Amino acid sequence: MASDLLPVDEARARILAALTPTAAETVSLPEAARRVLARPVIARLTQPPADVSAMDGYAVHAADAVEGASLAVTGSAPAGRPFAGLLRPGEAVRIFTGGFIPAGADGILLQEDATAADGSVRVNEAVRAGQHIRRRGLDFAEGDALLPAGRRLTPRDIGLAAASNNPWLAVHRRPRIGILATGDEIALPGDPIPQGGIVSSNAHALAAMVRGAGGEPLVLPIAPDDRNAIAEVATTAHAFDLLVTTGGASVGEHDLIQSALGEQGFELGFWKIAMRPGKPLIWGRLGRTPVLGLPGNPVSALVCSVLFLIPAIEKLSGLPGAAPPTRRAFTTEALRQNDRRADYLRATASVDAHGRLLVTPAAKQDSSMLATLARADALVLRAPHAPAAPEGTEVEAILLAELGV
Amino acid sequence: MASDLLPVDEARARILAALTPTAAETVSLPEAARRVLARPVIARLTQPPADVSAMDGYAVHAADAVEGASLAVTGSAPAGRPFAGLLRPGEAVRIFTGGFIPAGADGILLQEDATAADGSVRVNEAVRAGQHIRRRGLDFAEGDALLPAGRRLTPRDIGLAAASNNPWLAVHRRPRIGILATGDEIALPGDPIPQGGIVSSNAHALAAMVRGAGGEPLVLPIAPDDRNAIAEVATTAHAFDLLVTTGGASVGEHDLIQSALGEQGFELGFWKIAMRPGKPLIWGRLGRTPVLGLPGNPVSALVCSVLFLIPAIEKLSGLPGAAPPTRRAFTTEALRQNDRRADYLRATASVDAHGRLLVTPAAKQDSSMLATLARADALVLRAPHAPAAPEGTEVEAILLAELGV
Repeated sequence: MASDLLPVDEARARILAALTPTAAETVSLPEAARRVLARPVIARLTQPPADVSAMDGYAVHAADAVEGASLAVTGSAPAGRPFAGLLRPGEAVRIFTGGFIPAGADGILLQEDATAADGSVRVNEAVRAGQHIRRRGLDFAEGDALLPAGRRLTPRDIGLAAASNNPWLAVHRRPRIGILATGDEIALPGDPIPQGGIVSSNAHALAAMVRGAGGEPLVLPIAPDDRNAIAEVATTAHAFDLLVTTGGASVGEHDLIQSALGEQGFELGFWKIAMRPGKPLIWGRLGRTPVLGLPGNPVSALVCSVLFLIPAIEKLSGLPGAAPPTRRAFTTEALRQNDRRADYLRATASVDAHGRLLVTPAAKQDSSMLATLARADALVLRAPHAPAAPEGTEVEAILLAELGV
Repeated sequence: MASDLLPVDEARARILAALTPTAAETVSLPEAARRVLARPVIARLTQPPADVSAMDGYAVHAADAVEGASLAVTGSAPAGRPFAGLLRPGEAVRIFTGGFIPAGADGILLQEDATAADGSVRVNEAVRAGQHIRRRGLDFAEGDALLPAGRRLTPRDIGLAAASNNPWLAVHRRPRIGILATGDEIALPGDPIPQGGIVSSNAHALAAMVRGAGGEPLVLPIAPDDRNAIAEVATTAHAFDLLVTTGGASVGEHDLIQSALGEQGFELGFWKIAMRPGKPLIWGRLGRTPVLGLPGNPVSALVCSVLFLIPAIEKLSGLPGAAPPTRRAFTTEALRQNDRRADYLRATASVDAHGRLLVTPAAKQDSSMLATLARADALVLRAPHAPAAPEGTEVEAILLAELGV
């Protein structure tokens, strides 16, 4: 029944609507890179603080500095050491980039347009008033709101916050994301593997994604498929801003999570999402802690994380939270007609001689193939019921590197 | 003289040629995200370890499972708990996704194509041999080289390394980048600002860039414009894989750095690069430590870092090191004819209704305007001597977000 299946965008909208940003904390400037501002950065000074020279040369009174004139050099004004005196008619002050314009001067004679002599300078090219002067406040003025709340700080922003004299910034606390892998059959890498078991890959891949998205991951010990073990985790959920589980989300399995968590007073929902890979998803609330239950299949878990977990972390971090950005690309392979589930084809990407982005879906899209996902550069979006598309058709693709995934 | 000016690509090539990757260190899997592999990751097991079911249903002998047949259910094979017995003619074993195919079975009857009764199951749709079986080693086989040396590890790679049973990975040590801001006129944010001085913004912006690029930044105390103070830093240079200085790189100023460092046995070069902003650059070697001297102007320093420092950190990290990636875009403003210096216009970016990337250069490109750089999304490349270009012309642009800048 198609009505059973929740569209991807609707599932994400419900998740985002249930989340609120973390509170603010004060961090020192160097710690603030890639954090999300909780309060705007306000300039605490004016930059430049006075009219300054944009070049190396001589500060002059433009009316004096006609071609062929000789001006008496009465001092110098390097950056950081302003000339204290007054520039009088017929005088020049040696000046360097960033040096304050002395009182009385109104133009800069460029070094390369001047011939220095003993105690004087000859003007080889006339100076216009205002020439090569940066006005006070050209960059910003005290009180200007330079960076808005809700902005993720780039290295350039860190520079701007520094230049505007802000040693401390208010940012949203990194969301703490608990990660719980469940299953009797999984073992940690290097640990003894049970007969018929596999090595757990989800928790640490998710932890890396969480950290890359600006969250603080906490990887919990693996829980066996046991009501008591899973219920015990519920008692620690208050420590997290979001609890992510993997496994136990498929038909039948989800009853275990439902019943184990239900006794702890959870409001737990189970959705079938109209997507491939990764149909079954648990979403709910454990006390005050939201819970996102991902499929146990690693490819499904990671694709679901791109679509739901990263936007959730963004929302918790103080950002809007949105669908992952897509780029237009051209498929190098014919694509089959799609069924009612949105498909996310693992594909490699390249750029052709015309600068166009090309995507090549892997021949096998089996959702158990983690190596194929690791080698992929992109997820090619196939909307529900998308018609068959020949080679060369324009498609939308999520570039995984752009998400840090 | 045009011959004075070194082209950007040539400067970068010389820098990269002088650098060698850091040595390997062993880190635990969770620490390895975003690090660069020093040795390949080899699969230590085969995945799946046996033929497994791709679906929930019943393992059967296909020849028996004709429509209407009733099969005796003799056991179950969930993931992680293989069925130990042999499947005989007329029998079925309940199986779940990931469960090992029992000996004697060669196909999967889907749950939705079966009707379970007491101790037996009725086949509603005939089963083909091999149907819904994932073959042993479909994902990878023991001994496969899954991830090559020189690869920066994504969260997906961490998952793959885990799944292939690698709890430890050999990665290149993070390059240690010393950052030295020089100048009498600069003060740290929050510290008293000298008369005519400004607040230092380069060091912490560069530190954020270095960390984003995978390096370990060490911000040194500000050195005044003083030979002894700068020379003292030279004695600590052996602690770094690269020493970056800012300031002291313009005409006149560079003599100070040259003379201060010269006594310490430095081979120090000074280049004028055919670029704007950021013409003057120091490049050399302090004992065994390479030195990159950036301009003191923050916009110039950051643009030079995009072009030279990030590729240098990549090379030190074990990556090839290359020019920053560019994208094709269309300018929304007419561009003037360029002179002999490559220009990097600060621009905002957007996407139009046709999915085309648009760039809008800031009206003022003054290299002192840090706020304009912080608000920019892109650097639009203007090659030396590029002709005037009307609005709508296709141009190349560096998208700063793609570099984590």
